[in-house]
Amino acid sequence: MSDALTYGFLGERFVASYRLTGNEAEARAKAEDICLEQTVELPDALVPQNYIREQVLGRIEDFAALAEDAFLARISFAVEIVANELPQLLNVLFGNISLKPGIRLERFELPDGMAQKFLGPRFGRAGLRERLKVPERPLLCTALKPMGLLSRELAELAYQFALGGIDIIKDDHGLAEQHTAEFNERVERCAEAVARANQETGGNSIYAPSITAPAGYEYGAAQEAKDKGAGAVLICPGIVGLGVMQALSAIPEFELPILSHPAFQGSFVTSPDCGISHFCLFGQLNRVAGADAAIFPNVGGRFAFRTEDCKAIVDGCGVEMGRLAPIFPTPAGGMSLERVPEMREMYGRDMILLIGAGLRSHSPDIVANCRYFRELVEKI
Amino acid sequence: MSDALTYGFLGERFVASYRLTGNEAEARAKAEDICLEQTVELPDALVPQNYIREQVLGRIEDFAALAEDAFLARISFAVEIVANELPQLLNVLFGNISLKPGIRLERFELPDGMAQKFLGPRFGRAGLRERLKVPERPLLCTALKPMGLLSRELAELAYQFALGGIDIIKDDHGLAEQHTAEFNERVERCAEAVARANQETGGNSIYAPSITAPAGYEYGAAQEAKDKGAGAVLICPGIVGLGVMQALSAIPEFELPILSHPAFQGSFVTSPDCGISHFCLFGQLNRVAGADAAIFPNVGGRFAFRTEDCKAIVDGCGVEMGRLAPIFPTPAGGMSLERVPEMREMYGRDMILLIGAGLRSHSPDIVANCRYFRELVEKI
Repeated sequence: MSDALTYGFLGERFVASYRLTGNEAEARAKAEDICLEQTVELPDALVPQNYIREQVLGRIEDFAALAEDAFLARISFAVEIVANELPQLLNVLFGNISLKPGIRLERFELPDGMAQKFLGPRFGRAGLRERLKVPERPLLCTALKPMGLLSRELAELAYQFALGGIDIIKDDHGLAEQHTAEFNERVERCAEAVARANQETGGNSIYAPSITAPAGYEYGAAQEAKDKGAGAVLICPGIVGLGVMQALSAIPEFELPILSHPAFQGSFVTSPDCGISHFCLFGQLNRVAGADAAIFPNVGGRFAFRTEDCKAIVDGCGVEMGRLAPIFPTPAGGMSLERVPEMREMYGRDMILLIGAGLRSHSPDIVANCRYFRELVEKI
Repeated sequence: MSDALTYGFLGERFVASYRLTGNEAEARAKAEDICLEQTVELPDALVPQNYIREQVLGRIEDFAALAEDAFLARISFAVEIVANELPQLLNVLFGNISLKPGIRLERFELPDGMAQKFLGPRFGRAGLRERLKVPERPLLCTALKPMGLLSRELAELAYQFALGGIDIIKDDHGLAEQHTAEFNERVERCAEAVARANQETGGNSIYAPSITAPAGYEYGAAQEAKDKGAGAVLICPGIVGLGVMQALSAIPEFELPILSHPAFQGSFVTSPDCGISHFCLFGQLNRVAGADAAIFPNVGGRFAFRTEDCKAIVDGCGVEMGRLAPIFPTPAGGMSLERVPEMREMYGRDMILLIGAGLRSHSPDIVANCRYFRELVEKI
């Protein structure tokens, strides 16, 4: 008779789906290996014949062919082995097997009680729309750059963007603590500039400074940003860790939306045979870690994402995940005003359109360019 | 005349080397793109004709063929754009370009003053040898597992390992806050068990608990570990962020060695054409982020690393990096006692030999197996 209950395992499990390459026997061996590798890290013969084998060990729930040389395995794990900790969830989903070939994490499914523990996006699509008072159309976003400008120059840009009606004016993700525009001064000046423009236009533009900082300082930077009037923050979970974003999103008194930037995450999606799927990395993991918007490189820009990758991210941003709210896909990376109609067509209304340099090169008048951008989006 | 000094750029630069795939024209275009993408994020035509172009922009220092379709570009960046922050160093080295195909970060070189700001390994090889009183031979390491064992069972294992003369007894990296062996109880019992064994043997074994935890809690866990008598800690920088490991290593009163575990980092080294080289990821980046030992999957175990990958890690752990001390390569991942002579041959004396399950399957007597392991290492 099972001793699982005696040892506190209630039988609830979460599921991860992996794409496994190889012929059927090879793929099945990989699935069996995942069950061991991600839990007990012992050869099968050494796994104790008790609740550890029965509950702690991963379990193949389904195994199906995707193609001649690719299979999909759904593997379940005991909820208890994650102990409601995001780092340990990441570890069970993909820790050691990130080091093995031919395994790609495609998606995961958490029981409702487990997902709730991570809280997820504080705003999500509905909350961000409400905050920005934009009920229907896609949101507009641009970036303050280049690195090297002084705080007052960045603030002047922010003012013009806000005057032109851009909803979210974010720092370039490379703006950190450089002496040319130190965080505190930059945030103060840019937030003030956006507020001033709002007063003139009656608009609701917000400024989102980059709070990627040395470990432990992200929280202070976020608080400082809020205190100085920023309306959101930008963070790179690939650099600071998804756990930092999640911890920030879970602080009760930190009430700002979070934009997740994909810097340093590209290697996870390099190969169709390994890493993490676009759907899971930019969609599901961002959501479980509390992002309200997921920035990613749109197809056809400076990066190499394909149409199907971008669509998978949209799916991951919106797929049902219990109480975790859907978030905004935010295609970016070398977009131009000319491409707005095509992007509107592809993404629909629930997206944030992020155009950086493209908003400056259209004409010398930045305010006019922003207004044109907004008209383009509104008239469709 | 240059306005760089006026704006606080002193002219000191650090260098990153990238492997670029494609023909010469393609590779050169990639190198030029990196100069823009990792700094100003603007098309060349929009880069201001002042100190920003002259200093902030990346600069190609060398460009040479590696093969017909692969080139190596050394690109320099102004020291000031990193502002002495590790996350921003990671961002400049590989942030956005992680999302572009055919670019691999091979290595980086920091000027001495810059490297010093990150402090690096507190112990390094010499310090860890001194602490363990093992001046010459390779160090021995094993892991407490499986997940699901109770704290007292893990402690009993730790006791036997220490009795058998294993230098470093670490948690399996998947041991977190599971109810079967909660952190505080586990650390207390295991540290006590190792101390008790040391008293009996006169040895200097240490226990290294896993402190990978929700963001912000790693520091408390590390302090708790130290207070309870742990002799080192284990952390997964791929999960919590390299910055957390670095912040921990830089806390003056935290005086324990740090073992870096590679979980979740595998995707960076999947392809020879992109990601980060083994040398840089497991060697250089671990060092700049304060690890004293770099655990990685040895060739021929459960993982897919090749001999040349492992040798590159050894190089990265030992290469001259100004004042950053060399650290211990720690090959692991399905190693057996039978392979000790071969590993000794390949790695020399400056390594930590990590054998987990292999130490249990050799014979039913764990203490005897450990002694045999130590004899094997000592007699060579």
